[in-house]
Amino acid sequence: MKIGVLGGGQLGRMLGLAGIPLGHEFVFYDPFSDSPAREVGQLLVAEYDNNDKLEQFAKSVDVVTYEFENVPLRSAALISKIAKVYPPPEALRVSQDRLFEKQFFAQLGIAISPFRQVESQEELFEAVNQLGLPAVLKTRRLGYDGKGQHVLRNPEDVVSASRFVLPDSAGWILEGFVKFKRELSIISCRFPGEKISHYPLTWNHHRDGILNVSVAPAVEALPETSELARQIAETVLKKLDYIGTLAIELFEQEDGSLLVNEMAPRVHNSGHWTINGAFVSQFENHIRAVSGLPPGSTHNTGLWVMKNIIGEYPDLSKVLSDERAQVHLYGKSPRAGRKLGHINYHCASRDEQLKLAKALLKSSHL
Amino acid sequence: MKIGVLGGGQLGRMLGLAGIPLGHEFVFYDPFSDSPAREVGQLLVAEYDNNDKLEQFAKSVDVVTYEFENVPLRSAALISKIAKVYPPPEALRVSQDRLFEKQFFAQLGIAISPFRQVESQEELFEAVNQLGLPAVLKTRRLGYDGKGQHVLRNPEDVVSASRFVLPDSAGWILEGFVKFKRELSIISCRFPGEKISHYPLTWNHHRDGILNVSVAPAVEALPETSELARQIAETVLKKLDYIGTLAIELFEQEDGSLLVNEMAPRVHNSGHWTINGAFVSQFENHIRAVSGLPPGSTHNTGLWVMKNIIGEYPDLSKVLSDERAQVHLYGKSPRAGRKLGHINYHCASRDEQLKLAKALLKSSHL
Repeated sequence: MKIGVLGGGQLGRMLGLAGIPLGHEFVFYDPFSDSPAREVGQLLVAEYDNNDKLEQFAKSVDVVTYEFENVPLRSAALISKIAKVYPPPEALRVSQDRLFEKQFFAQLGIAISPFRQVESQEELFEAVNQLGLPAVLKTRRLGYDGKGQHVLRNPEDVVSASRFVLPDSAGWILEGFVKFKRELSIISCRFPGEKISHYPLTWNHHRDGILNVSVAPAVEALPETSELARQIAETVLKKLDYIGTLAIELFEQEDGSLLVNEMAPRVHNSGHWTINGAFVSQFENHIRAVSGLPPGSTHNTGLWVMKNIIGEYPDLSKVLSDERAQVHLYGKSPRAGRKLGHINYHCASRDEQLKLAKALLKSSHL
Repeated sequence: MKIGVLGGGQLGRMLGLAGIPLGHEFVFYDPFSDSPAREVGQLLVAEYDNNDKLEQFAKSVDVVTYEFENVPLRSAALISKIAKVYPPPEALRVSQDRLFEKQFFAQLGIAISPFRQVESQEELFEAVNQLGLPAVLKTRRLGYDGKGQHVLRNPEDVVSASRFVLPDSAGWILEGFVKFKRELSIISCRFPGEKISHYPLTWNHHRDGILNVSVAPAVEALPETSELARQIAETVLKKLDYIGTLAIELFEQEDGSLLVNEMAPRVHNSGHWTINGAFVSQFENHIRAVSGLPPGSTHNTGLWVMKNIIGEYPDLSKVLSDERAQVHLYGKSPRAGRKLGHINYHCASRDEQLKLAKALLKSSHL
């Protein structure tokens, strides 16, 4: 089968690496000719609003998926007239806009942190009055890895941030701070025929707003917490009649209950450990789902820690001299804050896993 | 690093899939434009005797390796004047010719089956007299998967085969039949700095001269047998000052002793289980070796059975509905006797492994 992927970043690259052994071929659509996925398929270089190229792309493949959730809805709609698009474009619409996303979760009765829509400076001040400080002001659209976010801790922060809130901007939301114990995520996959598989919960550690280290399966997760996360994912997957891999980021509270932070209708950085650490990875299961193949086992094979390589490359020989390490590089040129690859470490015990995670969180240079 | 690979078959494809995550890029050199490796790198389509193209190829990469041991020696020599070639071309010279190979093993004191060089019909009759029947007449060059072989069971077979033995042919050897319990293989990898790693022994089952099912690690292999296999591999690797993955096929006799059948200076079908079944696969370790990276662990992750897909494709949905299965297809069009892919099955016990191997050996259609 020929699979078209909107976006040619590292997620596309890893989708290709997982799908080629299944006999699939790939066409990636991306505005940049040096996109990481160039090594694992044909790269169609064009802007996302180029209707001719979108049409040509859609006609050249059997099914279309995406690795980038900010594909313009108009482009996805145009493509879906020609080819099947999985996950459904409705998942894009919901996840592209933090306001729609919050409303979507709220309608499904899924617990989220308190929020207010903010369209003007007045609305910002009012929202701060209602939710209190600290709070986070976030753009409704196009924010990722901490971009487009302002943490408001005191009245000065509010005044300073208020200059961004202009009537002609794409809109904002203010999110109330919630106390939480830690950040978790659940990666799930839904297949034709309504079968759903979940990976074990992952415990995520961010630095400067970017995922830095994941511990999988999450240590000390209560069975009830895992079950709750699965229920949340299943509710979302069914509501969207979803096909493919979905990631949901969660705040775990002291009592084990969960608040949903956000979702990504695609394979996700917090599931990168599954390439080595699960019987079938999130990438292969995504490809199996969109190409109509049966679910692969999501069981973890031992205990894992994932470390993102950010900004600059480590000495590869040094990294691989640790026999626990498996390296995945994305073929990108280094730049501050840029995700260049990740390392999956296999650990023999929970104790080793926690020690390693702590050490990796401290080290930016490996 | 840019890695050049002579040959663009399935072995090249799997080398690419293993090497891309290490940040490498690939150029494959192959006479056929539909070569399986086309999906994972640039494919340079040219004949092996095209000096201009060979030169262009060698200049475009940082290091050259091969996935096909019948690369003409002249081509390898030409390339090695421009780029480093790993494994060393001497390994090609030895393994391309069954006579040289036998002499090479004999000189190293490694046990092999009795053989005679055969250049004429008279020499054939004399060799049969010396070694007895049954025996196998094999071409010195270009035989693989049972091609170029004649089993001689009675005098009629000898007379009938003798018409192939012409003075202007590329030469033959007659190999005496040896009683053996089973066929094993050892896959080893030697790295810069003389470090050597071995995978556990694999137990191989052929059908019509083609590998059909492998069981890994080989059941009931005595520690002395494993140690002997490792010693044989190390002797060969050191003698050739080898860099990369090497496969040695072995006949295990009733007492656990070993005779060498042949070697392949490359990744090998009997090591395909390592993609899912070892911490680091034979493909990744080959790439690590030729690109100067540290050895990866060759430990197996559980018990595995590998089944080759030969001649025609099975129903992929049916195969993958068995959660133990991991599929690796090569992107080739079906043809009788052609290797199209393989399936790695993860087994929970030795008992399950043996039952599955037996069942898979019977089924050509999965």
